[in-house]
Parts: sequence; structure tokens; C-alpha cells
Amino acid sequence: MIDGSIQSFPLTLDRILEHAAKWHSGTEVVTAREGADSARIGYADLQTRARRTSNVLAGLGVVGGERVATLAWNTQGHVEAWFAIMGMGAVCHTLNPRLTPTQLAWMLGQSGARVIIASADLVDLALAAVDDAPGVTHVLVIDGDSERVHARAAVQPMEPLVEVAHDACAWGGFDETSPSGLCFTSGSTGAPKGVTYTHRSSFLHTLKLLQADVLGARETDVVMPIVPLFHANAWGLPFALPAAGSKMVLPGRRTDGESLARLIAAEGVTIAVGVPTVFLGLCEYLDASGTALPSLDRIILGGAPTPPALMDRIERQLGVVVQNSWGMTELSPVGVFGVLSDPDRRPSISGKPALGVDLMLMDEAGAPLETQRGPEGRLHVRGAAVIERYFGQEHPVVDADGWFDTGDLARIDDRGNLSITGRAKDLIKSGGEWINPAEIEAIVCALPEISLAAVIGRADPKWSERPILLVEVREGMDISDQALLESLRGQIASWWVPDEVVRLPAMPLAATGKIDKLSLRAAYGA
Amino acid sequence: MIDGSIQSFPLTLDRILEHAAKWHSGTEVVTAREGADSARIGYADLQTRARRTSNVLAGLGVVGGERVATLAWNTQGHVEAWFAIMGMGAVCHTLNPRLTPTQLAWMLGQSGARVIIASADLVDLALAAVDDAPGVTHVLVIDGDSERVHARAAVQPMEPLVEVAHDACAWGGFDETSPSGLCFTSGSTGAPKGVTYTHRSSFLHTLKLLQADVLGARETDVVMPIVPLFHANAWGLPFALPAAGSKMVLPGRRTDGESLARLIAAEGVTIAVGVPTVFLGLCEYLDASGTALPSLDRIILGGAPTPPALMDRIERQLGVVVQNSWGMTELSPVGVFGVLSDPDRRPSISGKPALGVDLMLMDEAGAPLETQRGPEGRLHVRGAAVIERYFGQEHPVVDADGWFDTGDLARIDDRGNLSITGRAKDLIKSGGEWINPAEIEAIVCALPEISLAAVIGRADPKWSERPILLVEVREGMDISDQALLESLRGQIASWWVPDEVVRLPAMPLAATGKIDKLSLRAAYGA
Repeated sequence: MIDGSIQSFPLTLDRILEHAAKWHSGTEVVTAREGADSARIGYADLQTRARRTSNVLAGLGVVGGERVATLAWNTQGHVEAWFAIMGMGAVCHTLNPRLTPTQLAWMLGQSGARVIIASADLVDLALAAVDDAPGVTHVLVIDGDSERVHARAAVQPMEPLVEVAHDACAWGGFDETSPSGLCFTSGSTGAPKGVTYTHRSSFLHTLKLLQADVLGARETDVVMPIVPLFHANAWGLPFALPAAGSKMVLPGRRTDGESLARLIAAEGVTIAVGVPTVFLGLCEYLDASGTALPSLDRIILGGAPTPPALMDRIERQLGVVVQNSWGMTELSPVGVFGVLSDPDRRPSISGKPALGVDLMLMDEAGAPLETQRGPEGRLHVRGAAVIERYFGQEHPVVDADGWFDTGDLARIDDRGNLSITGRAKDLIKSGGEWINPAEIEAIVCALPEISLAAVIGRADPKWSERPILLVEVREGMDISDQALLESLRGQIASWWVPDEVVRLPAMPLAATGKIDKLSLRAAYGA
Repeated sequence: MIDGSIQSFPLTLDRILEHAAKWHSGTEVVTAREGADSARIGYADLQTRARRTSNVLAGLGVVGGERVATLAWNTQGHVEAWFAIMGMGAVCHTLNPRLTPTQLAWMLGQSGARVIIASADLVDLALAAVDDAPGVTHVLVIDGDSERVHARAAVQPMEPLVEVAHDACAWGGFDETSPSGLCFTSGSTGAPKGVTYTHRSSFLHTLKLLQADVLGARETDVVMPIVPLFHANAWGLPFALPAAGSKMVLPGRRTDGESLARLIAAEGVTIAVGVPTVFLGLCEYLDASGTALPSLDRIILGGAPTPPALMDRIERQLGVVVQNSWGMTELSPVGVFGVLSDPDRRPSISGKPALGVDLMLMDEAGAPLETQRGPEGRLHVRGAAVIERYFGQEHPVVDADGWFDTGDLARIDDRGNLSITGRAKDLIKSGGEWINPAEIEAIVCALPEISLAAVIGRADPKWSERPILLVEVREGMDISDQALLESLRGQIASWWVPDEVVRLPAMPLAATGKIDKLSLRAAYGA
């Protein structure tokens, strides 16, 4: 008996833009521009431009499997570059403009990219990196033009090349497990590590996001990814929005409160997505200007713990629902999303895994906790978009069952909701016992006077390490050291109370916007 | 340079129930029972029972790839059987209880199933089929017990076997393209044809359904699949609901208005899914009893065109949103779904394709229409859950690009919305020109006096064929032949007006609930 069969349908990312071009052809991708009207284009025309861009790259000899770098803001040109690179089977290596030229050059050396696609105002940075990245031969300029030249690499504006390129080109047709993207982690624990995404993993990640209780984007939604395209796939939004036929609103370089507020109002944004700090800026601008944003329905937070006061403020001031999330570069990046239909949303709850991701709490030895609901454990993840092996490394970073150790400490409540309780490597060992900085930081961050707080361990001859508290006080406010430490009494063990308070005019942030504990430890940990 | 990689994660259907068991463990599957309280079980316990059922089947020698038949209503036992069969890598061959023993025996012969899992009140039918299906050795009885015996096949109640079976068993671990299900089409154009689903195709179909603008089920939803599990995977709901963590409410055998209304009220159903006729029965019961169903948010219709008057009546009387859909067994089965966020929903619009399905209108020669928006064409579909080849047949039924000819005529409007305008094979050729019965039926069905209407061709010596109109008049109402035909004047070409009106006390329905045009043609077409 001959069995029947379902047709082959490789999950390649070019299909996503093809779907949008055909079924949501006029739905717009809008990009804010400084000193000019916003740029706007429908998905059908964007697809045509992306296909032409593929031909531009092919003209430079780019072939399938080859890494092509981008160093750009959230703009139409960057989205076109993404789909151009991935559609032709090359690998989109996103670079973070907040890194130094030396760091960028190191990553370019790792990936072997010959071509960088750079926003005009990032060409200087790109060329500084190229000085130390001898493999780079071309810098293609998007989002404007550049007069700069380089001794070795050719610097060319993309636009004239796109205009004359053919729009017929071969997209897709390769194996769905082919690599599509490369993103280096911020390297908070040493040298940055590269995560390679595949067409299949990003396609399945997209379908995970589109579920109603996760991102749940609709064709009537207008979604603003403030989270950068260079940071962990912008949480997958550049795929999910064309897949759902949602309008995409890109803020470009400016993510200050005023710029975001104007763009949200002008484009009728319904969902805005980013790290907590950008929404603090938005709330403060709205307060100061007396403006409201009636179109906004929902704000999705991730990338850092949600300060309770901020969640409350956003929901009250903007009249929107705040949806938390948690993920990592290694997860493509979404691990859990706050369940949209769950009435019991809280700042400490990151959310639940959707179909395609699984979580397991383990002990220090890597054995699953007997009770998965309640106790704190070390969080492991596996799933359709979870790493197996870092770029350039021979050995897998998952155990025999596929579990990846996130390095985070977490609890899962009775309803399956995940709360991240700390970073295993941030724990402070004092007198042989562990202190969890995250618990102390959460209490201090809840104080209205405090903008940002970090607790690190300082070397101590007697206790080996003792915690110290570093704070950035909110502008125009004040609080005494004693009051700060008093806020902790009764809420944590007395020996957890930090030995000292350090005030910083500005908390150092890593390239991803998170507090840079590496530099804090270097400056204050000795 | 060693490329990085994402871990392997085969898309096998056992993962769906595993996800529900772990993350929605207590969420219930409820089954209505006659003369008893509804049965209820959480997803975790249901998974345990399904795993035990796998061991029962393994004990009968069932192995991966082997077909196991089910002949059952929408009940917990049937859902357990599904996951038991598919989880162990066997193929779930669903049989339609509305078919005759001869038809069932023929299908059993095709699939080679040795085991049938049957609802207690379908054991007689099963055994009548087994008389002519010599390969069947076991009939396992679910949903109650049976005293019946068979000369050859062993008839055994499932429950005692499940109770003593181990719950440890190997689920998954096979290739994701392994077959998972087999469903024969109703055979409206000749011998029934078997469609084989795979784990991958049904998993991807599930993710398609879960998108917010499609089914968009949430964990707070309570969903009632009235569409039978034996009909085209119950439109994918038995996978989608555990995947989303929605409560599942199964009506069992009774789908009359009163039974459905009681169940909806008792369980707080938010979404009910079925063919239009069942909701007509529901509306009429609610009218007669003066009952309301406040929990209901949405009704999803499919399997037959939506009569405009019914859609209007449902929305008005129940205060819910009606969401249309269109699909076929060959599409797993969903092709398009009414876009939930589209404010312009109309009865004639079936919906739009979501990511993973593509549509193309072609001419009679199989060439794509130059203009895909506006004109009527023959509908072709391709996608991740679209057939390539029927069971037992050597040749694919798709063209070189993967397009499957649905046999339907359709239009796609400027916004991408699909309207089915007729069945190519239902067209009537009169005087060398085509008459589309579907257009005439839509007008007649909109009359308040008409319950069901069909137009077929009758052999005609002069014109080759001439249309005749067959109607079932709503109970307690009346309308003259002249008034019926008058309703068509000015709305269709005068030569399309049927030559005769035939009144039927009850319109004959095929096993899938659609009007049985084959039998109408046999009785009235000569």
C-alpha cells in the first residue's frame, strides 16, 4: 500500500515576506526620519526592494551561507537588508552600534563578513571597525548617504544600486535548517558568543509569537518595535509583523520619550515593544507635556526585569495593558510571554511558555528539581528555537535531553507562571552562604526616589564577599543611605543588608541596555 | 569555521498533549453524557490515560505506521484514542458513523486497520462493517460498554484495559513527516479518497489556527467543537485547544439545539464551532425556550456556505461574532478563516489565508488568472498542510509548483478575502453556457421561508441541461413556486431561472452534513 502524503513546504523566511506582499500588500512599514516626514512603504513594494537588494549583494559575489553584516537602526532599509540577506540564503549578522570598534572588528573577524550594510550615521563606526577587520571589502550605506571613504573597503550608497537592480531573483529553495542569522551575546560573562539562527527556528519562533496569548498581532494592529533589530532579532517582530499583516512602525535612531510619543500618535500605534527604560522616558514626557496616546492598547516589556512602579505607572498613566516577557539571544529570543488573557498579571511574573518551548528547574548538579512548582531552581530551556551549539564551537551547550542552562534562577508558580529571581552568576557568596542581589534590587527599585539599583559583591577578607548597593537617584529627588537600607529591614535576612551605598550620577548600561555589572564589579568590587 | 546550530525539535503531535499536561494540567476536557453528569478530566490526567491506551494498543501488537480506526462521537475517549494512536506513531483512521457498513468496510479494507475503537452505541455499526472487513481482529469499546460479540473479531471494553495498563510508554521520537492520520473524503465525486496527514502537517496546521486573527484560542477560552472528530480532524481543534490551554467541551452524540444550549450554559462555552445547520437548531431552541447564552463570544462556521439570514440571526440573537471559514479534507482542513479583526465580515466571505497557506485562481487550463483580485477563477491551494498524493495512489494531485486544484470556483476581493462562488463540477451547462447553482441557491436561501435549497441540472433534450430548484421550506411557513422564482428575477440572468420547483420534506444530507447533490441528481436529474 502506498501511503498518502502532504506536500513539502520548507519553512524558509522568504515565505513570510512573500505572504505579506501578497495578502497585505498595501499595509505599511513606516520609518521615522529626523528632519523629514516619515518614510512609508507597503509590504509588496518592500519585498520588491528586498529582492533587488539581494541582487545588489549577489553582484558583490555574496553567496548562500555567507555572513553579511548589518550595523543599523530600526529602519525600512534595515528590514530590507534582513530579508535580502536571508531570502538569498546568506546569513544576516547583526552588529550592535553601542559596541566599540574593537569589539565590532572582533565579531566581524569571527563571522568572516565581507560586506557591512550600515546606517549613514553609523558609517564612521563601521569604518573604525573595518580598520581592524581586514576581511571587509564593502560598506553599503542605507538610511542616507555618506561622504566617507576607506583605504581598503569600498563605501557605496545602497540606494542607487537598488534602483538599477533586477527584482527577479531566487529566494528560498534551500533546506529549512540553513542558517539565517547570527547574533553575538553581550558577553556579560566573558567573550561574546555567537548564536546562529536557522530559517526553521525563526519561522517556528514566529508562529509561536503569533499565538493569541503571546504577541497575538492582528492585521488591524500597528506595532512599534523599539527593541533594536540588532538585538536578538528584535524579539522576532520583523518576522511576526509581516506574517500577521500588521503595520510596522520603526522609530529609527531616536527612542526618547518625545520622539516615541509623536510617532505613536501620528501612526496610531496599538502595541509598543521595548525595554522598560524607554517607557519610563515615554511616561515622563507624557507627564511633562500633558499628552495622551489613545491609540495605544498594549506595551510589551522585556530585556530586563519590570520595575513594579513602572508597570503600575504605565498601566495607570497610559491606560494600557503591560505584557511582560523573558528571553535570551540563545532562545531566538523569546522564552516566555505574559499570558494576555491572564487577569493576574504581576511585574514579577515574566509569563508562561507557549507551545514549542519547555522549561525545567534544576539543582546545581543539573538534576531536575523534584517539585517544579514553588521552589527556586536553575532555569533550563529547550525548544524549537533554542540553541544547540554556539558559532565556531565544536561542543553543544545543551545536555543529552536538549536542556540549555540559562544561568538564571527562577520559580514557577502553581499556574505555570515563571518569575526570574536572579542570575546564578550574580549571586554573592558571603560567609559560605548565598545572597541573591536581584531580591535586594527589586525592593530598592520599588522606592519612588530610585531610578536604577544594582547590588554587587565586594571582596571581603572575613566573609569572602559582602554586598554593596549602587543606586541612581531619580532627578530632583533624594533619599538618605539610612532610609535606603531601612527599606530592606524585615524584607530580607539582616546579613543580606549591603555594607555600603554608592551613588552614581548615571548607572553604566551595557550595549543591550541592561545594567553593566561587569564594569560595576571592575570599579567597585575589589 | 564551525557554524552554530539550533537544537533539533521534531514537530510531533505528542508534544502538544505533553505541553497541555505540563502547563495546563488542570484545564478540563468535558464530555456531555446522556442521562448522567458530564465527564470531566484535566489535560494531565488525559495524557496519562492516552499513554495507557497506547500500551493497550501495543499489547494488541499495534506498531508505528499501522492504521488504527476510530468510529466514535466527540468524547474524551475519542480524544484519548487519537493521542494514543498518534503518540505511539500509529495512524488514526477516523471513520464516519453516518456512512453505511459497506462503505466503512471498503475504507477499512483500504487502510488495513486491524483494530477499531468504537463508541458503545456505534458497536453495531462497527460489527456490521467488520462482517465485510476481514482484516479487523479487535473492536475496543469506549464511551460505555457493549454486550455484542462477533464471530471473528474480539469485542472488548477499553476501560478495564486502560485501568491496568502502564502509563510509561515511548511517545514521539520518530520523524516528523511520519503519517499521523487518515481521513477519507465524502466522495462527492466518486469513490472516497484517503488523505494522509503527517505529524508535521498537523502541527503546522495547529500553529496556523492559533494565530490571533484565525482561531486565536486563549487559555481563558472554553471551546466546543461540534464539528465531529471523524470529519477532517474536527478542523484541527483537538490539537489547537490543548496547545493553547483552552478548555474543551465535547457534545458527544447529541447536537440538537437543546443539548447544545444546556452544555454551553453549563460549561461557560465562549467559542462554538460547527456547520451552519447546527446553529440554526440552536437559534430555534433559544427562540422557543426564551433562553440566552451570555458566555458565548464567537461562533465559527464552516463545512458549508453560510446562509446570510442565519449569520444575521446568530449575531443578532446570540450577540456574538460569526467567523466564517473554508477548507477541505485535503487541506487538513483549514484553507481560510474569516479575519477576526476585520470589521467588514460578510456571509459570502470565507476569509483570508494565514501564513502557511497560499491561494491562486486559475483558468480552466490551469494557468493563473492574470488578475487575481476580482474575477472568478478555479481555486488552487498550496501550503504546509496541503495534500500531495492521496492514500494508495501513486501520482501526486498537485502541479509542479505544488498547487492543488480544489474544484471550487472563487473570487478574491481587493482586501484578499476569498468568496467561494460555486463548485466547478456543480455547474450546469445549458445551451452551451454555464449556470452557477451556488448563486441561485444563495438568493433562495436568503428568503425567510426557506430552510435549505439546492439547484441541480436536469437533462434537457433541447438545452442539454436545465436548472431545477429543490427546496426544504421552514416548518410552519409557506411560499408559492411563483414567489420563489420571482425572488430571482433581476438578480440573475433570466435564462438561469429554474424550470421547476421541487419541494422536499427533508433535504438529503451527505455524511458530512452537506446537501447530498449526488442523490438529488440521481433522483431528479434524469
